[in-house]
Amino acid sequence: MRIHVQNPASDPEFSITEAQWRAAIDRHPDMVGMEVSFATDEAGLAAALPEAEVLLSWVRPLKQRFPVGVLPGAAPRLKVIACTSAGVDSAAPFDWLPDSVALLNNRGTHSDKAGEFGIMAILMLQTHMPAFADQQRRGEWKPRFASTLAGRSVVIVGMGSLGGGVARRARGFGMHVIGLRHGSEPHPDCDETHPTEALDEVLPRAEFLVLACPLTERTRNLLSRERIALLPQGARLVNIARGAVWDQDAVCDALEAGRLGGCVTDVAVPEPLPPDHRLWRTPGMVVTPHVSADDRERYNDRTLDILFDNLRAMREGRAMPNRVDPAKGY
Amino acid sequence: MRIHVQNPASDPEFSITEAQWRAAIDRHPDMVGMEVSFATDEAGLAAALPEAEVLLSWVRPLKQRFPVGVLPGAAPRLKVIACTSAGVDSAAPFDWLPDSVALLNNRGTHSDKAGEFGIMAILMLQTHMPAFADQQRRGEWKPRFASTLAGRSVVIVGMGSLGGGVARRARGFGMHVIGLRHGSEPHPDCDETHPTEALDEVLPRAEFLVLACPLTERTRNLLSRERIALLPQGARLVNIARGAVWDQDAVCDALEAGRLGGCVTDVAVPEPLPPDHRLWRTPGMVVTPHVSADDRERYNDRTLDILFDNLRAMREGRAMPNRVDPAKGY
Repeated sequence: MRIHVQNPASDPEFSITEAQWRAAIDRHPDMVGMEVSFATDEAGLAAALPEAEVLLSWVRPLKQRFPVGVLPGAAPRLKVIACTSAGVDSAAPFDWLPDSVALLNNRGTHSDKAGEFGIMAILMLQTHMPAFADQQRRGEWKPRFASTLAGRSVVIVGMGSLGGGVARRARGFGMHVIGLRHGSEPHPDCDETHPTEALDEVLPRAEFLVLACPLTERTRNLLSRERIALLPQGARLVNIARGAVWDQDAVCDALEAGRLGGCVTDVAVPEPLPPDHRLWRTPGMVVTPHVSADDRERYNDRTLDILFDNLRAMREGRAMPNRVDPAKGY
Repeated sequence: MRIHVQNPASDPEFSITEAQWRAAIDRHPDMVGMEVSFATDEAGLAAALPEAEVLLSWVRPLKQRFPVGVLPGAAPRLKVIACTSAGVDSAAPFDWLPDSVALLNNRGTHSDKAGEFGIMAILMLQTHMPAFADQQRRGEWKPRFASTLAGRSVVIVGMGSLGGGVARRARGFGMHVIGLRHGSEPHPDCDETHPTEALDEVLPRAEFLVLACPLTERTRNLLSRERIALLPQGARLVNIARGAVWDQDAVCDALEAGRLGGCVTDVAVPEPLPPDHRLWRTPGMVVTPHVSADDRERYNDRTLDILFDNLRAMREGRAMPNRVDPAKGY
């Protein structure tokens, strides 16, 4: 099998190296014998496409590089495009993708890291860290006490890799975990699992709300101003999904009005957030610069593990676990 | 048995109520029939002392209320003084305490809460939260990535209730936990346990260092300027012990010099910390106002559970698990 790895020229830290490739083959000896090429530039990509059966690429350039109708002629042998990111919203809509090519996301790379970020954010909000950060700026020593997390409820929207990682950690702290997902298949790390359509019914029980879903046309503005009003007084929010999943201004308004007890967001509209943006300065809001899910030390190894698991499934005629459904968008 | 509960007049939120007492008796039915009195003032204390066999009190007033030699005459039937705090350093030295009276600390009330605070602090330091807080103040969107905690080493000084709580959580995140304690009895939540005397040998391995020991004459200035120099470049520190356990100025110097990767401290010298103190403004330092171990919602219930467990041990002729060794100071 011929595989081409197209690395991002702009972000060498995320480039998959030949050494990482060889180490991955050592972990997956049944993948030995694959022919692999690497490039960061257009010339390298163009040279590889005619023969490539698998393309491993960062997601950003795909849609632009392959206008509608171009891909079948440019890469006639291509069967799989594997993206190095879990969210593929920047490649939607998928009108450029022929039915004969399977698009894979990188779901699974982020679970451990996102779980740690999520439980950190929940612990910070429970412990009044946003208020203590304000007090530290003013040099004010004013204790505010907080109980432990055991028994508190957390609603997690999106039970994929990110949400699943948070659910597992939240359960480890004795929280009551309510997961929302497409369909309503029970999730092993949730006390309750509901379909996303039940959001309005569970929001009044959300002492903590974690947004961890992909951004699609169905989830855009999911946490609207009206839904924020359904949350209990003092509810605490964590957003590790995308900034467009909540009504960012309505969240800031609710914090300023004292309706919410605090927020940690790792995403924003726009990114990067300009220096004078309101989000930076809303009281009770902690902003981090989109770092919640990326574990650079282990990222590329996990990426190759996931790719090989999927190629093995394809070879054995099983469904590829990371295949994106273009209609759903994830 | 006659027991007197002396509540702090200054801090009604921590007062043990009659309702909490009754609820505790319901949880410990073998304690039914005890005669209990409550007071917040000197008159109530003076009235109860002649008959009291057990005094449950906050620790602060003990040393002043009972000058050396006074206690036997004032409370001739007294067998137990139970303190509502885990640290009894403010009552040392214990020259005022007759050998016939057992002093109990409240070790065990704080374990869960301290464990959550400790792992929150470790996660924040691992995730570069001190730097992100600085960036948020400046409105600067600049990602810094971080891997997960698995495999990183944490040295915990003091394997009592606080340190044990942190060790348990750190293990849950796959960290390599090195515990230091008086003696060297292995601790079930540590990968390695060493006597406190081995501190100099383990400091070079401390990617994270958590101070969680009582303040005694042996631990005062334990993390001295010389020992800070033994830490690896970029080490991260958490102090939930007492401010005097480390050389506070040396820690600030090391942060300013870039020798340390960040600190979270819940304690300070002095407390409350004055508004213009250097600690508030040292880059990479997160200060919280002594809230890491107090779970007010559950504190009094846990206090009474611990008291009853000790009284049961006394009745059955077993060693009381919370008895303080005046020579050791905890």
